[in-house]
Amino acid sequence: MAEKTWVRMVTAQTPTNIAVIKYWGKRDETLILPVNDSISVTLDPAHLCTTTTVAVSPSFDQDRMWLNGKEISLSGGRYQNCLREIRARACEVEDKEKGIKIAKKDWEKLHLHVASYNNFPTAAGLASSAAGFACLVFALAKLMNAKEDNSELSAIARQGSGSACRSLFGGFVKWIMGKAEDGSDSLAVQLVDEKHWDELVIIIAVVSSRQKETSSTTGMRDSVETSLLLQHRAKEVVPKRIKQMEEAIKNRDFGSFAQLSCADSNQFHAVCLDTCPPIFYMNGTSHRQVKFLVSSDMGI
Amino acid sequence: MAEKTWVRMVTAQTPTNIAVIKYWGKRDETLILPVNDSISVTLDPAHLCTTTTVAVSPSFDQDRMWLNGKEISLSGGRYQNCLREIRARACEVEDKEKGIKIAKKDWEKLHLHVASYNNFPTAAGLASSAAGFACLVFALAKLMNAKEDNSELSAIARQGSGSACRSLFGGFVKWIMGKAEDGSDSLAVQLVDEKHWDELVIIIAVVSSRQKETSSTTGMRDSVETSLLLQHRAKEVVPKRIKQMEEAIKNRDFGSFAQLSCADSNQFHAVCLDTCPPIFYMNGTSHRQVKFLVSSDMGI
Repeated sequence: MAEKTWVRMVTAQTPTNIAVIKYWGKRDETLILPVNDSISVTLDPAHLCTTTTVAVSPSFDQDRMWLNGKEISLSGGRYQNCLREIRARACEVEDKEKGIKIAKKDWEKLHLHVASYNNFPTAAGLASSAAGFACLVFALAKLMNAKEDNSELSAIARQGSGSACRSLFGGFVKWIMGKAEDGSDSLAVQLVDEKHWDELVIIIAVVSSRQKETSSTTGMRDSVETSLLLQHRAKEVVPKRIKQMEEAIKNRDFGSFAQLSCADSNQFHAVCLDTCPPIFYMNGTSHRQVKFLVSSDMGI
Repeated sequence: MAEKTWVRMVTAQTPTNIAVIKYWGKRDETLILPVNDSISVTLDPAHLCTTTTVAVSPSFDQDRMWLNGKEISLSGGRYQNCLREIRARACEVEDKEKGIKIAKKDWEKLHLHVASYNNFPTAAGLASSAAGFACLVFALAKLMNAKEDNSELSAIARQGSGSACRSLFGGFVKWIMGKAEDGSDSLAVQLVDEKHWDELVIIIAVVSSRQKETSSTTGMRDSVETSLLLQHRAKEVVPKRIKQMEEAIKNRDFGSFAQLSCADSNQFHAVCLDTCPPIFYMNGTSHRQVKFLVSSDMGI
């Protein structure tokens, strides 16, 4: 290892993703394993994205992170799980120009600094944690020269925020719920890339820029514990919809795609309402938007 | 029969009822047979009620009805079914003082005038049709000297509006869905009378006096046809809740009663949201009310 003054940095940019078949409910809270498969569309990184710079230096004496310029704690289990998993996959790094050489075993002792920025509102229903953890894991993998492919990295990002696993790919992405108890088969695969359906345009109408009142984590936990409709949705409804949605995407069948997306979004909100206490993520403005879409018959 | 100038009248008053385990979905549209049992509490007739006067006279040349002072058509199937069923049960009536004698067979030829008033908003979620049809059938049964008890009359009122069957009794009432194809066993029974739990007070907060945008009939039909959660609710969730609710009412257990009522109301709204197109019966004000109840921990 070179002297203590060097800093090695990697910057990555990861877009957020919007589920068209929703993830709502975990079967394992720690590993973040879902009760059903989900499918999302990844947004254009030029629009909604997280930009994260990760840095390593022998001069850093602890892991630290800044989100949107403000330091946040990395002590939470989710950050710790991601850092542990990615460190375990770190490989030797050599930068001859700068005279840096990091051996595989050095990564255990080296500390990290992370700076992350979202160019869109945090915790407002736009999957900021998805983009954030995907970007963190991806940037660290590059920094540490990890050899894992994006699906393998997705299983690590998943342990930061479930939907983060879907932001490792562009285009349409499926998060396979998996069966293994250790979560090793719960990861994302790309269904089609971003060129497959490039005339599809997503319009995001912001109905409120306030943070949502119930976090996804708390909401999901309450739904799993109290909703008498959630398991039926997960076991009976979603598996059929996943197949129909894959077919609609493959065929660029906008009618079916829109119908399934709307039906599944509404069912997710229905499960939230069936939760005790009920969770309301829609407001009067969203209701009017839905009614407008129905009345203008936009393929729904 | 006496000369053509006589008029025989009966006036009845029937309260509305509010379901605590909801009726949402028919298995037979014509007979109005539900997909699940339901339980309601009948309001005090001094507060929300329908007052209906039915009159018969040989001078009437057709059946006519006025609702809140405005003539409405009786040609709809629901009115026709109620009129046919109650006429089939008409018996001889004699009023010696007035010199009126109506033989059983005369009822087929005699015409009726009906005047009905609601002392609360119509079609605003307060079960105006429940009170209305219950009152109509009850008043006609008295007018025609029908011998049926209130449960038997409830099966006729049910054919006017499903929830009407529950307004034939005070206190807590269960509408048994029944199994018979002809609907003969789909009727209301009183669980306990109005004295059983007389410290219970119902507060109705009017969040909008506008008519609802989707009628119950249309909404239920759409839900049965499109919601993938409705049948699960009807078959798996409601039967258990009915038993729990009967127990809570029997024991005057307000905690369980409130928890079950809120959970079932929210699940009904969840099924509405899971309908295509989605049905919104709650607005921002109702959302805030629910949140207020939850935060003030009113037994929920």
